[in-house]
Amino acid sequence: MPEQLPADSVGLVTPITQTFSEPLLLACGRTLPSYDLVYETYGELNAQASNAVLICHALSGHHHAAGYHSLDDRKPGWWDNYIGPGKAIDTNRFFVVSLNNLGGCHGSTGPVSIDPATGKVYGADFPLLRVRDWVSSQARLADHLGITQWAAVVGGSLGGMQAMRWALEYPERIRHCIVIASALNLTAQNIAFNETARRAITSDPDFHDGDYLAKGTYPKRGLALARMVGHITYLSDDGMDEKFGRELRAGSFVLGSDELVEFQIESYLRYQGDSFSGSFDANTYILMTRALDYFDLSREYNDNPVSAFSHSQCRFLVVSFSSDWRFSPQRSREIVDALITAGKPVSYAEIESKHGHDAFLVPDQRYRQVFSRYMNTIEV
Amino acid sequence: MPEQLPADSVGLVTPITQTFSEPLLLACGRTLPSYDLVYETYGELNAQASNAVLICHALSGHHHAAGYHSLDDRKPGWWDNYIGPGKAIDTNRFFVVSLNNLGGCHGSTGPVSIDPATGKVYGADFPLLRVRDWVSSQARLADHLGITQWAAVVGGSLGGMQAMRWALEYPERIRHCIVIASALNLTAQNIAFNETARRAITSDPDFHDGDYLAKGTYPKRGLALARMVGHITYLSDDGMDEKFGRELRAGSFVLGSDELVEFQIESYLRYQGDSFSGSFDANTYILMTRALDYFDLSREYNDNPVSAFSHSQCRFLVVSFSSDWRFSPQRSREIVDALITAGKPVSYAEIESKHGHDAFLVPDQRYRQVFSRYMNTIEV
Repeated sequence: MPEQLPADSVGLVTPITQTFSEPLLLACGRTLPSYDLVYETYGELNAQASNAVLICHALSGHHHAAGYHSLDDRKPGWWDNYIGPGKAIDTNRFFVVSLNNLGGCHGSTGPVSIDPATGKVYGADFPLLRVRDWVSSQARLADHLGITQWAAVVGGSLGGMQAMRWALEYPERIRHCIVIASALNLTAQNIAFNETARRAITSDPDFHDGDYLAKGTYPKRGLALARMVGHITYLSDDGMDEKFGRELRAGSFVLGSDELVEFQIESYLRYQGDSFSGSFDANTYILMTRALDYFDLSREYNDNPVSAFSHSQCRFLVVSFSSDWRFSPQRSREIVDALITAGKPVSYAEIESKHGHDAFLVPDQRYRQVFSRYMNTIEV
Repeated sequence: MPEQLPADSVGLVTPITQTFSEPLLLACGRTLPSYDLVYETYGELNAQASNAVLICHALSGHHHAAGYHSLDDRKPGWWDNYIGPGKAIDTNRFFVVSLNNLGGCHGSTGPVSIDPATGKVYGADFPLLRVRDWVSSQARLADHLGITQWAAVVGGSLGGMQAMRWALEYPERIRHCIVIASALNLTAQNIAFNETARRAITSDPDFHDGDYLAKGTYPKRGLALARMVGHITYLSDDGMDEKFGRELRAGSFVLGSDELVEFQIESYLRYQGDSFSGSFDANTYILMTRALDYFDLSREYNDNPVSAFSHSQCRFLVVSFSSDWRFSPQRSREIVDALITAGKPVSYAEIESKHGHDAFLVPDQRYRQVFSRYMNTIEV
């Protein structure tokens, strides 16, 4: 708990839940008859409604991106390093909207919600979503808030994919697209890690084909394992070595056997897995990783990203991190190359970092400078 | 089944089981009262017993490195590409010994064996082993075969660690040490992947703290998952993309939900996991990954690999592969640098390959040339 809230914090924030009663046709062909989206806002919408910034979250993210829910909170929102007064996304200038995506497990309609058609929890029957479904539902949230055009849509990782999809689906509704540590699609290796995570969940006997809530169980072991796999891919090899190395918990080898945890990295990973599995829904995790796998920006443009981006009308900032091997700088350069070839305005920065894919969340001077300066060029 | 055995095959081979009745004191402090080792030999031991080559296997390997067990075999031994008449390890010149390590599950004493003290299967009670224990037990096999000194000890990955340990523990018993796709120790990331694999096994309810055989169960799901994780790390990102890319099994998205397998890479990984889990012992997998984690060539030499190698008397060949990210070329260069600084004779080759860590098993012209030419310099 902070003694008092930091001066550069957006302060105390309260999530808002909005119900949308108009049915939403999804990419998979099914329709959600109605749905809730939970979101937070930071800063003030100006009179022309020209200063709105949408934050799109990544795999395990949610609407609480900045500030505190109460004075007892030990931690602020997940992107508090970059959202606040005077920060990169400066809430003195921008009206920031951050939502929990459809299919999430933090208040928006998802697998843990009640299906109005049956009166029971959706569970495994919740429809498969794609990034374009999130963009559609976000556009309705913009309508509701009176935002005709976003000053910027911003996202890291899976969030960057949403930002790019916005630029193609609603070219007239976005002035700046900010794509951080992302890619045009997943590699086979990315998909392989996701599939391993899903398999960890689905092969847990407590998963019950996704109907664990109805059965009164929970695939905690499977979800913890899934998170362990994911977590390794978020960090860099060098970063892990610097933080943990081959350090032993007991100082020397114990060489015991039962549930032996010899190395610091082992206990760290177990902790990460266990704490995540106590706070996240397994069906949501499967749904989010599927959305990642399916995302392929240029698939419907003959696999040509230049054709895809030719539909965009906004400016782009693309940022990558040197030690990110999940979405390496090479993957960001593919985005930049396609934008340049399509004749679209793009700025690109590759940030030196030891933090791997997680670098997009971590404080870093050059990243902050690049991000701030770009955001400051946005007219509101 | 080959119509007839290839001309460059060692042909039909028969494993031999040797019982060692003298107790073996292990690094963990426990003693194995007696044990079996199963091994194969290819070629003929010469009169001076100066042409013997020891093959050390990797994580999931075994004694069957070359040739066929019967004319019905669909595949030869795991390193048949490099062992045989006229091959890199030329059985016209060398007498090759390939064993299943202690703790294995292919015939040598291990967790699936009967503990003579209890009359029951060892299971989880089988002692934890370290690379030095394997080297000790291999030295006894050499004694039994009348081999005072190996012409070469050869291994890839975990096998390379055994070869290096031989050079330090029995410097007078090894003339050439051949270390392929290996490292002085594991990084935190390597350990993290191993820990995830172990956790997959131990969190399978059928694992029963390792006593699954006594309970009549088997942690098949956990072992399949462990293998999936491992398998991703054996391949390279580029290699996977070339082989699988984002190819869809059905040609287009199915967007179903139950146990959906959309991408080729998903079904490939599942197949690998399932087939492995039907043929490998879970306790052995845990034991082997632990031995990998513990291995640290220079730990007892003040973490100084130069001091460690100063004890060696043999020549070294070190080989790495460009796309191996499990044990990258950087890790092999650490070995080479330490050897040079210690004033030891070493040859080093970095082979261009898309096959990742698995490259040490795969046919490749330059690798074969380097390997063959080095082996041909060995006087017998």
